[in-house]
Amino acid sequence: MIEKKSPALFEQIEEMMEWLASFGKTNNNGVTRKLYSKDWLSAQEAIEKQMKEIGLHPFYDDVGNLFGRLAGQQENASTILTGSHIDTVIDGGKYDGAYGVIAGLIAVQYLYEHYGSPIKNIEVVSLCEEEGSRFPMTYWGSGNITGIKSFEDVHHLKDSKGIPFIEAMHQAGFGKGNHQPPKRNDLDCFIELHIEQGEVLEREEKSIGIVSHIVGQRRYNITVTGESNHAGTTPMAWRKDAMYSTAELIQVLMQKAKETSTDLVVTVGQISLEPNVSNVIPRKATFSIDIRHSQEIVLSKFCEDVFKEFQLIVNRHQTQLHIHNWMNEKPVKMCEKLNKISESILRREQIPFKRMTSGAGHDSQVFGPFCSTSLLFVPSQNGISHSPYEFTRTEDLEKGIQLLIKVLYELAY
Amino acid sequence: MIEKKSPALFEQIEEMMEWLASFGKTNNNGVTRKLYSKDWLSAQEAIEKQMKEIGLHPFYDDVGNLFGRLAGQQENASTILTGSHIDTVIDGGKYDGAYGVIAGLIAVQYLYEHYGSPIKNIEVVSLCEEEGSRFPMTYWGSGNITGIKSFEDVHHLKDSKGIPFIEAMHQAGFGKGNHQPPKRNDLDCFIELHIEQGEVLEREEKSIGIVSHIVGQRRYNITVTGESNHAGTTPMAWRKDAMYSTAELIQVLMQKAKETSTDLVVTVGQISLEPNVSNVIPRKATFSIDIRHSQEIVLSKFCEDVFKEFQLIVNRHQTQLHIHNWMNEKPVKMCEKLNKISESILRREQIPFKRMTSGAGHDSQVFGPFCSTSLLFVPSQNGISHSPYEFTRTEDLEKGIQLLIKVLYELAY
Repeated sequence: MIEKKSPALFEQIEEMMEWLASFGKTNNNGVTRKLYSKDWLSAQEAIEKQMKEIGLHPFYDDVGNLFGRLAGQQENASTILTGSHIDTVIDGGKYDGAYGVIAGLIAVQYLYEHYGSPIKNIEVVSLCEEEGSRFPMTYWGSGNITGIKSFEDVHHLKDSKGIPFIEAMHQAGFGKGNHQPPKRNDLDCFIELHIEQGEVLEREEKSIGIVSHIVGQRRYNITVTGESNHAGTTPMAWRKDAMYSTAELIQVLMQKAKETSTDLVVTVGQISLEPNVSNVIPRKATFSIDIRHSQEIVLSKFCEDVFKEFQLIVNRHQTQLHIHNWMNEKPVKMCEKLNKISESILRREQIPFKRMTSGAGHDSQVFGPFCSTSLLFVPSQNGISHSPYEFTRTEDLEKGIQLLIKVLYELAY
Repeated sequence: MIEKKSPALFEQIEEMMEWLASFGKTNNNGVTRKLYSKDWLSAQEAIEKQMKEIGLHPFYDDVGNLFGRLAGQQENASTILTGSHIDTVIDGGKYDGAYGVIAGLIAVQYLYEHYGSPIKNIEVVSLCEEEGSRFPMTYWGSGNITGIKSFEDVHHLKDSKGIPFIEAMHQAGFGKGNHQPPKRNDLDCFIELHIEQGEVLEREEKSIGIVSHIVGQRRYNITVTGESNHAGTTPMAWRKDAMYSTAELIQVLMQKAKETSTDLVVTVGQISLEPNVSNVIPRKATFSIDIRHSQEIVLSKFCEDVFKEFQLIVNRHQTQLHIHNWMNEKPVKMCEKLNKISESILRREQIPFKRMTSGAGHDSQVFGPFCSTSLLFVPSQNGISHSPYEFTRTEDLEKGIQLLIKVLYELAY
């Protein structure tokens, strides 16, 4: 096997991260590559060229996912897929998505140069879209490959400038049947290398995160309705104060979250009051709740318990409660067999790793129910992501790629 | 003395309330009379005319306060002043302020008709401004009479259309020295009849509120600063969540308010979060606190205790606290001697009354430290005020005026 640290690999990673970040570079030293934009297309074309140079056969599917295939020797071989997404949030970082694509290219190049053709096919994928930063649509790339999304889901969508999704897709050269249909039936597994976008690995001084689950997410809008009244002339006992009720709801919500499980995370990120005047008792409070955990049963039980308690609290305050659930994504289990392969490699190489869940969403959650899927993390400095300040040390990027090389070798050779 | 119920009085009250409400009547059946506006001027001129008709000598001071004088027989007699303000909030009700002016006119007319000239002077005042609804300036009328306000306080002020205060005053015919200087040195006492703007009298089935204190008010803006982070990838234990801290602060604030005194009222009417996104832990929460009580020592002690506890809470959450106090109005005591006169009249007449504090601000709080002052309330239906739905039954208005007649009789005859 390859050496633990490789000066050549280190240099290649630094170079390729800068190279890909140059497509859609912003004035803030960030990156903006929105689906089907000019910068997005230039990036895909540059990756296509790179794939050719390292001996892969590049091809697109009809939604713009780009694949680089290293054909296996086995007849009717199934395919090991690795990669991530090429699109970014607006003024995002260099690593989110891009790292997984570059890692795939470098790993497969290395394997091909050192070991020639594999037994199974290996493909590196540059998924067209994951972030939803141009159109209100996420996981468009992986959703098409796995068959859970189709043109019907986007016919009505427009971007912020009013350009229809279909028109943007056509302008980029996709959606017209010039490429193969995106749905795949030959995938053996999907392996995604990604930055953590959290601080866990850095704080715990681990080099790799092996993801067991991508958490389920529930999002709610909660409305508490009371009664507006004069702040000076209404005794406390007679009030139906939407803000006071809400403070108690949030307090109980957070308290229960901490008691339930260290893996449960709950966030109240938005709040508004009506009429929102300092000397008027608020008649209405609206706030958001974001709840995430890796076990559906924990999510269900938590929500059930909390909302029961919510009702008791508003009854006590003589206010009304309305709960609107607008997102309900189930947790997705990653493939334990694949995770075991990574684990045994990391143990052998004595690289510190952590079994963990992913609190953020990734293409892997779309692949998870479709084929064996493994999501592997490298540390994010200070947990910063979706920002030009997103950063991972090249040493850490390299450890991820070294692992990917070994995992692909075990699976495909 | 006059009869308990008078059909003639009842009719006169109904008629005069409608008459005054016709100046600045809105499409919503509300009233808008902003300081120095056309409608405001028409109202003052109509009251001036009415004063003349009932035998009073009308005169303005140089800021536009209108007085109707019934001269006393005593040489160098001091003056008993009664009335309230003529200006309104935007689309306000018919009663706030206006009732006190009309009550004065009706009471003095009655007294003059029945008992002729008093011993002391009685004046009815239609104060030019109390609400601060045109310019950011409240109690302009009473503030000038008592000498705590002057032109220097308004030189820099403009209304929402950019019209300077001084220009508006000049256009209405005031501020040019054509009338007497507003500061008075001959006032014996001030008696203000006003609607309660709360529900206490109605709920407790009392006809009259005798105000012992106008509460002190403190207003604060509280800023809690934490750290923005990803709602999915940041474990609860590592968060510096400005919203969670704030929920605990508000909860403790309200709990302590209820424990401290039934007369203490505390309101959180405004709140905002940054960045206010459902899947981002808020880095900053800003909220208002409005605290009112009739005893300065209770206010001080409460604020001291609560803010000490606030500090402990933010320390626990690893967030930062900033407390900005932008209003600090001391409680004002009304004249107990005057209150005793009202009380003995009401006992004698067997009219149910309540000794109470005023949670809202009134011109009486400006007169309070300057001369003997009495503030008397009549019930407000459902406590609604500053709205076209503001309503007090004529029966209740009449009881207030009957009381005013008797109080003025005792003081001036």
